[in-house]
Amino acid sequence: MPFLDIDRAPLAPVAGFRFASLAAGIKKNGKPDLGIVVADEPVVCAGVFTKNLVQAAPVTVAKKRARAGKALAILVNAGNANACTGKPGLVAVEATTSALARALGCAASQILPASTGVIGAQLPTAKIVDNVPQLVATLDERGAGSFARAIMTTDKFPKVARATFKLAKTEATVLGIAKGAGMIHPDMATTLGFVVTDAAASPTLFGKILREAVAGTFNAISVDGDTSTNDSIFLLGSGRAGTIKPGTPAAKAFAAALTDVLGALGESIVRDGEGARHVAHLEVTGLATDAAARRVAMTIATSPLVKTAMHGCDPNWGRILAAAGRAGVAFDPQKAEIQIGGATVIRKGLPVGPEAEKVAAAAMKGPSYPIRVKLGAGKGRARYLTCDLGAEYVAVNADYRS
Amino acid sequence: MPFLDIDRAPLAPVAGFRFASLAAGIKKNGKPDLGIVVADEPVVCAGVFTKNLVQAAPVTVAKKRARAGKALAILVNAGNANACTGKPGLVAVEATTSALARALGCAASQILPASTGVIGAQLPTAKIVDNVPQLVATLDERGAGSFARAIMTTDKFPKVARATFKLAKTEATVLGIAKGAGMIHPDMATTLGFVVTDAAASPTLFGKILREAVAGTFNAISVDGDTSTNDSIFLLGSGRAGTIKPGTPAAKAFAAALTDVLGALGESIVRDGEGARHVAHLEVTGLATDAAARRVAMTIATSPLVKTAMHGCDPNWGRILAAAGRAGVAFDPQKAEIQIGGATVIRKGLPVGPEAEKVAAAAMKGPSYPIRVKLGAGKGRARYLTCDLGAEYVAVNADYRS
Repeated sequence: MPFLDIDRAPLAPVAGFRFASLAAGIKKNGKPDLGIVVADEPVVCAGVFTKNLVQAAPVTVAKKRARAGKALAILVNAGNANACTGKPGLVAVEATTSALARALGCAASQILPASTGVIGAQLPTAKIVDNVPQLVATLDERGAGSFARAIMTTDKFPKVARATFKLAKTEATVLGIAKGAGMIHPDMATTLGFVVTDAAASPTLFGKILREAVAGTFNAISVDGDTSTNDSIFLLGSGRAGTIKPGTPAAKAFAAALTDVLGALGESIVRDGEGARHVAHLEVTGLATDAAARRVAMTIATSPLVKTAMHGCDPNWGRILAAAGRAGVAFDPQKAEIQIGGATVIRKGLPVGPEAEKVAAAAMKGPSYPIRVKLGAGKGRARYLTCDLGAEYVAVNADYRS
Repeated sequence: MPFLDIDRAPLAPVAGFRFASLAAGIKKNGKPDLGIVVADEPVVCAGVFTKNLVQAAPVTVAKKRARAGKALAILVNAGNANACTGKPGLVAVEATTSALARALGCAASQILPASTGVIGAQLPTAKIVDNVPQLVATLDERGAGSFARAIMTTDKFPKVARATFKLAKTEATVLGIAKGAGMIHPDMATTLGFVVTDAAASPTLFGKILREAVAGTFNAISVDGDTSTNDSIFLLGSGRAGTIKPGTPAAKAFAAALTDVLGALGESIVRDGEGARHVAHLEVTGLATDAAARRVAMTIATSPLVKTAMHGCDPNWGRILAAAGRAGVAFDPQKAEIQIGGATVIRKGLPVGPEAEKVAAAAMKGPSYPIRVKLGAGKGRARYLTCDLGAEYVAVNADYRS
């Protein structure tokens, strides 16, 4: 498990990167809210961004800049999403990234911006610009842990994961840092991920591997199905440990390590969903295509009825099957088989009986269990992480802004 | 407002129809759970059914029978959905409807079945068959109110609505009876609607008008976006008040009356959503097509974040806009305008200010208010009803089966 409890283990550096963070007064509670990741020199980069039509100003800017394939630094703030802020929002991104660029002696186009926090409020530009010198002065190759804390919003714990892989004769490292309590706050907008590695590759290969890793991890988690205006994931590679060529064992090993890191971060985000006590590893098989399986998995994973049944530790397969049935995908319900926590509760569309449900109910009391939904003989399959929906979720989300 | 409080006003008969209901012991709590609607002779009928792939046995049977365009009676039970029951479930439908057919002296194919209740348990056939004589013996043209109570499951109140319309020189009546606490129980499966009228028309015209009326009413309500294995709406017309020809003013008047009745029933279902304190009348305009507007409206209406914000009376337009942005439909967020409770909270994609939000927040404390989302200059529009998501919803749905 690549997830790291940074309160217990010191965070070893990744060659070529330094971090800094501080409290700039953007969050009302005075906690750290501003961070930078700086490479020793311009390095290869790739990014994946929210598909929401409503995109925050930093997303608009970072998307364009990441396309160049080279970056020197990331500038991220919590406490303000800089979303729905119009032209002044874009001006604020230019101003803040230019300030960091000046301090680092590079072009603003080499700074990737990211923001998270409340929607619709203008970014307090001065608070960021004024703190740039202090940030740059405190850059530290061991600063990743503090950086991880600075980007938290409703997160209950910092999210850091690390994996290594073999690159020629050396061991290379992938270090990922994320924020997000389960994509549940479009106005605390929302999931950010920052990955650094001491490997490098062409921007094309970096982008391809990142997109594939995100598809099976960050894009397959659901707390409530809502997606945000600010979701961004960046990957930067210093190349200190070597360069990865396409189609090599190293490329495969890197993809696996990156997927492990993003998978661990994704699960930690789901686990941090407000009020979440149970995480289900949902697997849907037997559909005609992976896309069809994914659609069914997403419909089950976001169903409030399935998620409240999870909260009550109730192996309510009727809700799972009914959610699958409304996903808009063809299957024969009479071939459906559902396993919860290892117990088969329906077979050929019919309930197995109360004993099986008892076994399933017992498994559902645990923090994590599998739900397997087999809908026929097709080869399409998909995985999804989801969590229970509890009263705490309602409390946090009903009262957040007040 | 065609909704009727049947505790206060006596329910006038609709010529040509009688009702009966009783407690057959299907519900565990001993409350009434079996009902019939019987026409004086075979009458024109139409039906609209769930689009869920997983369909209960009575839906499979009723769909086929309704296609004939003629029916004598409806047989409905609460307490058991007869869904996911395989071949024995279909046999049970044949057995129970045959028993009623024998008592009424007609073919089983003239009986339309409907069930609501727990999924995955076999229908207690004998409890129904044994009570058929008693049901038929107590048929009463004034029995609609008791019938409405007998089909309740988690409903807090019976749902009856009535409207009249001009048919040549007489006044004709549409009486609708529904059950459902907001489509929130696939395993208490779910929305049933029964409409009788003393008008008649061809089965084709009846079907067309019913489908159109359902599209703008029952199919535009959301408590949680889940849809059921059992949803069915039947329309029966005795023709005692006359016959409606296509394209006449009477056809238009009938469509309007039916839409009013189903609209009132739909709103009463949303209002009955567990824990619901606030109903929003959502209107989405400015999209390219009605279908696009409908997709946006549905995404907003089912967003847990929007619904929890409603619960907290928080005019959180960021959540509304972000939900619209992930609906998969093209629009320019910079043209977006959102009104909540009459107050414009964003214009051209930018927040109007705290004063407007205060006005909106005040309106949101009421039981019912409009949310208008204008996304551009297109002519596509859609309406949707939705309600807030409160802690009571979680409690009821987490613990329902236990």
